[in-house]
Amino acid sequence: MTEPAVTFADIQAASKLITPLVHRTPVLTCETLNELSGRKLFFKCEHLQKVGAFKFRGASHAVARLSDEQQANGVCTHSSGNHAQALALAAKQQQMPAYIVMPENAPRVKVDSVRGYGAQITFCEPTQDARESTAREIVEQTGAAFIHPFDNPHVIAGQGTAALELLDEVPDLDAVICPVGGGGLASGTCLTARAVNPDIKVYAAEPVGADDTYRSFQTRTRQSVGTPNTIADGLLTSVGELTWPILHENLADVLIVNDDQIVSAMQLLWTRMKQVIEPSGAVPLAAILNHELPKDLKKIGVILSGGNVDLNKLPW
Amino acid sequence: MTEPAVTFADIQAASKLITPLVHRTPVLTCETLNELSGRKLFFKCEHLQKVGAFKFRGASHAVARLSDEQQANGVCTHSSGNHAQALALAAKQQQMPAYIVMPENAPRVKVDSVRGYGAQITFCEPTQDARESTAREIVEQTGAAFIHPFDNPHVIAGQGTAALELLDEVPDLDAVICPVGGGGLASGTCLTARAVNPDIKVYAAEPVGADDTYRSFQTRTRQSVGTPNTIADGLLTSVGELTWPILHENLADVLIVNDDQIVSAMQLLWTRMKQVIEPSGAVPLAAILNHELPKDLKKIGVILSGGNVDLNKLPW
Repeated sequence: MTEPAVTFADIQAASKLITPLVHRTPVLTCETLNELSGRKLFFKCEHLQKVGAFKFRGASHAVARLSDEQQANGVCTHSSGNHAQALALAAKQQQMPAYIVMPENAPRVKVDSVRGYGAQITFCEPTQDARESTAREIVEQTGAAFIHPFDNPHVIAGQGTAALELLDEVPDLDAVICPVGGGGLASGTCLTARAVNPDIKVYAAEPVGADDTYRSFQTRTRQSVGTPNTIADGLLTSVGELTWPILHENLADVLIVNDDQIVSAMQLLWTRMKQVIEPSGAVPLAAILNHELPKDLKKIGVILSGGNVDLNKLPW
Repeated sequence: MTEPAVTFADIQAASKLITPLVHRTPVLTCETLNELSGRKLFFKCEHLQKVGAFKFRGASHAVARLSDEQQANGVCTHSSGNHAQALALAAKQQQMPAYIVMPENAPRVKVDSVRGYGAQITFCEPTQDARESTAREIVEQTGAAFIHPFDNPHVIAGQGTAALELLDEVPDLDAVICPVGGGGLASGTCLTARAVNPDIKVYAAEPVGADDTYRSFQTRTRQSVGTPNTIADGLLTSVGELTWPILHENLADVLIVNDDQIVSAMQLLWTRMKQVIEPSGAVPLAAILNHELPKDLKKIGVILSGGNVDLNKLPW
């Protein structure tokens, strides 16, 4: 096998660099969910991270790693989701321009949020091609550094710091589970957990309507997502070129769940834990409650990845 | 003036007694809400208390203070709200029967919850008279101890332990603000805060549609609520006989807010703090954002009193 794009040492270094920039989020427990799952669950609250999602870790780290010259030119990405907000705030916090390409049908609340962080928004047609070509033009014109939402070693290393904090607080976990979209969080979590304790099982949870990582894991070959169809709007992308080898090497399994299971888990998190969690963030709990995990996994860390939802468009 | 029904020593004793029974809830902060308010706000998360509300403190304390003989006969109350769930769970936890009188139109979710804690429910007509007479009959038949939701010294002392924990964690608060219905939480908060530091200003926040404490404070005479009309369904009752003198003596002011302001504050708590807070629990933040508090109140403790909402009946 080839060298991985990121190592645990990179994650430790990332943690030192971004600790002053990010929130150390709390770890919550819930007796009702322990009873329902028959395990002890430790929820790492990345929905309480700045911008309401773990994405701020990777974005902050990637921005902090730019050279002085690159920082002067700023950063660019295309995203309609949490990465856009994360990069916009990270750039603002570290005082450089941010250029965000958003599809013209992006939700108003997300556009307002990105603009609120002072980023310059360029709208484009809602296709992957238009997003990529528009971002490419901006990079050429401005010299901004393109920050990929997951296939970027500094982003992966930044996302791995969530699991590092979780294991610092609860060292004796038997397993950790997180959602997987492009795989930035999942690959960072793998590298951290397996380095801290090689016996820890790391699970990725994925919606059945965007099950590319599941199919990749079954076939041992990276697959892409086709046309995604799931309520978990943070997990629509295909697993990445850099993230896939790390997942392939380290994951215990990929667990798929359907949208009904995701919504039920989301309601449990809202009503019993009183936490506002977006559908993507509820996918790991849905997996725990709907799969037969090995009985010896008694203490499980669960990464609640984000809490950005439109209260006027709730799925119930 | 007469001796107050409860003293700070009672609250300190209550804290020792119930510490093993209740959650020590976290204190959260939120940069966005600090900016919006121009203060530093410290939110005491009683929505993360057992049964999702501070009411569990007072109920646990009242139950723990019963004699062995009383405990054998159990406890009784009438309530369709958080006190019913709190007393049911406190009785279950301390292994005695609980008899709860609920109006026949009580929400199914609350009935299920009370029943889930093993309490025996008696339904009655949805009038105050029917509730009181039904409870009286049960007390006569069973010998159960009637536990009033707020006009009970042990309940007041129990509710005062929330502010005690808050001030233990953030000792240099300039003010504390909590919602007021019957006044159990507000009076306990007054006694704690003013004993810990006589300079702390304690504010009670109240919906304009149930503004009896506001009118009581203006006229210096206890008023009752008439027909309440507010979304804050935990604050419908009139201020109590035992709680009013404590509030009268210790409150800096009573701040009233309308339902639109309550819903806006609730949405901020959900979207920016990612916390599921019921309307009553959002009343203090609404008061901070809509009243001109003295500029020298820089650090304010806010008691988030509860998070029990029906996700299918949200006010937006």
